[in-house]
Amino acid sequence: MGNGSPEKISQQVLEAVRSVVGPVGVPLHEPSFGGDEVRYLEECINSTFVSSVGPFVDRFESELGEVTGADHVVATTSGTAALQVALRLAGVEPGDEVLVPALTFVATANAVSYLGAVPHFVDCEERTLGLDPVALREHLETAVEIRDGRCVSRENGRVIRAMIPVHTFGHPAAIDDLLAVTVDFPMDIVEDATESLGSTRRGRHTGTIGRAGTLSFNGNKIITTGGGGAILTDDPDLASKARHLTTTAKVAHSWEYSHDEIGYNYRLPNINAALGCAQLEDLPDLIDRKRRLFKSYTRAFAEIAGVEVVEEPYECSSNYWLQTLRLADSFKVHKDSILSYCHAAGYGLRPAWTPLHWLDPYKDCPRADLPVAENLYRTLINIPSSAHLV
Amino acid sequence: MGNGSPEKISQQVLEAVRSVVGPVGVPLHEPSFGGDEVRYLEECINSTFVSSVGPFVDRFESELGEVTGADHVVATTSGTAALQVALRLAGVEPGDEVLVPALTFVATANAVSYLGAVPHFVDCEERTLGLDPVALREHLETAVEIRDGRCVSRENGRVIRAMIPVHTFGHPAAIDDLLAVTVDFPMDIVEDATESLGSTRRGRHTGTIGRAGTLSFNGNKIITTGGGGAILTDDPDLASKARHLTTTAKVAHSWEYSHDEIGYNYRLPNINAALGCAQLEDLPDLIDRKRRLFKSYTRAFAEIAGVEVVEEPYECSSNYWLQTLRLADSFKVHKDSILSYCHAAGYGLRPAWTPLHWLDPYKDCPRADLPVAENLYRTLINIPSSAHLV
Repeated sequence: MGNGSPEKISQQVLEAVRSVVGPVGVPLHEPSFGGDEVRYLEECINSTFVSSVGPFVDRFESELGEVTGADHVVATTSGTAALQVALRLAGVEPGDEVLVPALTFVATANAVSYLGAVPHFVDCEERTLGLDPVALREHLETAVEIRDGRCVSRENGRVIRAMIPVHTFGHPAAIDDLLAVTVDFPMDIVEDATESLGSTRRGRHTGTIGRAGTLSFNGNKIITTGGGGAILTDDPDLASKARHLTTTAKVAHSWEYSHDEIGYNYRLPNINAALGCAQLEDLPDLIDRKRRLFKSYTRAFAEIAGVEVVEEPYECSSNYWLQTLRLADSFKVHKDSILSYCHAAGYGLRPAWTPLHWLDPYKDCPRADLPVAENLYRTLINIPSSAHLV
Repeated sequence: MGNGSPEKISQQVLEAVRSVVGPVGVPLHEPSFGGDEVRYLEECINSTFVSSVGPFVDRFESELGEVTGADHVVATTSGTAALQVALRLAGVEPGDEVLVPALTFVATANAVSYLGAVPHFVDCEERTLGLDPVALREHLETAVEIRDGRCVSRENGRVIRAMIPVHTFGHPAAIDDLLAVTVDFPMDIVEDATESLGSTRRGRHTGTIGRAGTLSFNGNKIITTGGGGAILTDDPDLASKARHLTTTAKVAHSWEYSHDEIGYNYRLPNINAALGCAQLEDLPDLIDRKRRLFKSYTRAFAEIAGVEVVEEPYECSSNYWLQTLRLADSFKVHKDSILSYCHAAGYGLRPAWTPLHWLDPYKDCPRADLPVAENLYRTLINIPSSAHLV
C-alpha cells in the first residue's frame, strides 16, 4: 500500500492539476486553431482541388521536410496507413515478425498485422518509455540466430524483418542505441514518430534516423489534419514507391487505368493538407506552450510525494505531446482511484495503453519478458495536455 | 475496320463533345462547390471537433440514411475502406473467394485482397455494364458445388463467400436477378455503390438491397468529402460492428485503452463530413444536371454513326456519374485514336478500366469466361461529366 489513503492522494493530484489548468474540467487533449485554418480551407474549396492531388499536399510535404529534415515526405490518410506502407517497403512480408514495444497504441501492432506479419513484443525502458536497447539485445541473443544475414526466430523459424521504436508521448526513444543493436542483429528500423512531431534526439528529428519514420495528424496529436499521417525517409526509391503504393499503384498514363501491384487509397486529401499547412505554422508556438506546461506541472507536483512528472530523456528535446505522471511503486495501487476521482471532477486523465500482449488479438504473439512495459502501465497517468492550457 | 478514317471519327467525337461542353478543353470530372461548404468548414474549425468524432459525422450519416433509405450508415475514410470492412463483416475470411466483376476500378478487388481473400472474376452484361446474372448462374453451375449450405469451388476447394455487384459509372446492376442467383448459390451480396449515390432500381437506392453496400466520396465522385466513403446496411448488428472495427475496435471505457479485435483507423474525420453535409444539400441539383448532360450528349451524338451514349438500364434511374460512349464493334479499332485526339485538344476522355484479370497482381486469380467485360473495355469511352457543364 502507498502512503496515505486513496482519497487523499487522488485529491492531491486533482488539486495539482487544477492549479495548472484551472477549476473547470478539461479533456486530455484538444487541438488549437488560431491561425490560417479557415483561410486555407476556403482557398482549397475555391480551387476545387479537395482530393488526393493539390497544391496544399505538395506544400504540406515540403514544409514537413523542412521541419523534420527528412529528404522525402509522403502524406497519407493516417499514421497507421503510413506505418503499414513503410513496413511493406522495408520488406516486411506475410509470415515475418516485427519487433514492437509492448507499451504503445494498438495501431503499431495493427500495421504489422495488416501485412500478414506477426508482432513480436519486446520491453521498454523506464527512462525513455521506448524500446530498451539493453533488454532487446539480451532477448535477441537467446531468441534468434543469424542465417544468411537475417535474424531468424529460434522458436518458430520466422524472419524478424524489422523493429518499430515508438517515441512514446513525444519522448524520443534511444534510437542510436537501437541502431547499434541492428549491427549484430540485422533488421530495418521503421520509427513510429506518430506522437513526436517536433521532438529531437541529439539534434536529429525523431522519425528520420531509421530506414523510414511515420507521423500522425489525428485530432489528438500536436497538430492535426482531422485525420492524416506521413512517411519520412531519406531514401528516394522508398519515397517513390510509397507514392505509388498510396495511389492504388496506378501506372502513370494520360488515360489508361492500369495497376502493377496491390496498392492502397491512402493519399492525404488536399482539404486535410490545407488544415495541416495552417497548423504547421503554429508548431513552434505549440511546442513552446507544451514545454511550459511541463514546467508548470513539475512545479505543481514538486511537493507531492510519490508522484513525479515524466521529463524528456537525456540529450533529447521532447514536444511533450502528452504530459505524464509517474507513480512511485508504492503508489501504483492508487492509480484507478486517481483516474476515477479526477474523471468524476471532469478532468480527462488517462492511463497508458493496456500492454498489447494482454489484448485478445495479440495474446498469443511471441514476446520477450516484459516487466518494465507492464510496470509502466501500472504507474503512468497522462494528464490534460492541450497547448492552450498555458 | 470501322467506317471512315480514324481521324474523321475522332474529329466527329471531338466536335460533338465540344458542342455540349464548349470550345475550351475540360477534365473528365470536377467537383461542384456552390453552397455551404466554406461556412460548414468554418463552423467545424470553430467547434475544434475536426477528427473522427463530431456532429457533422453524425449529421452526414443521418442525411445519407434519408437519401438512400438505409437504416444504418457508417462513414469511413474511403470507399475502399468501407468495402473492406463490409466484406469482413459479411464473413469473408482469409482463403475465401469473392466474386468480382472483371470490369471495375481496382479498389473492388483490392478490398478483397486486404482480407487475405481472393477475387474470382465474373463477367458483365452489355445492358447494365454490371454483373451478368445469366452468365453468373451458368458459371456457378459448373464451377462450384454446394457443401453444408456453402458454395465451394470445384477448382480449388475454397469457399466463395460473397459477390460484389458494382453499379458501374452510376448505372444500377441487375441486383434483383443477382439476389435470385443466391437462392441457389448461397452467398452474401455486398454492393459496390461507390459510383452510384442517387441511383435507384425499381425505386430502391443502390447499395441498400444486398447485405451491405458502400459509397465513395472521393474527389471524382458526384459529391465529395475530399476522401471518404460509407457503409450502408439495414442490419443493426453489422452497423454496430462496423462502427467498432473502424474505430480500432476500442472497447468502450472512460479511460482504459483496450481493443478486442484487429480493427482499423477508418472513421471519416468531422472536417471531411462537414464538406459532405454541404455537398449533400446539392445532390438533387447535381443529379438533375447530370441527367440533362446525358440528354445533351445524346442529341449531339445522334447523327454520328457507330457511336452511342450509354443510357440508364430499364426500370432504373441513374445518377449518370460518368457519361459514357459506346462504340459499335466495327468502330472499336478507333478507340485509341479518339482518346489521343481528344486529349491533344485538352478534353479529358478516358477508356473503361483495364479488366482486372489482365493486371499483373490479379492475372492468376480464378475466373469465368469474360468476353463481355473485355469487349466493354474495347468499346466504352467516358466523356467529360462534371455537373457544372450544363
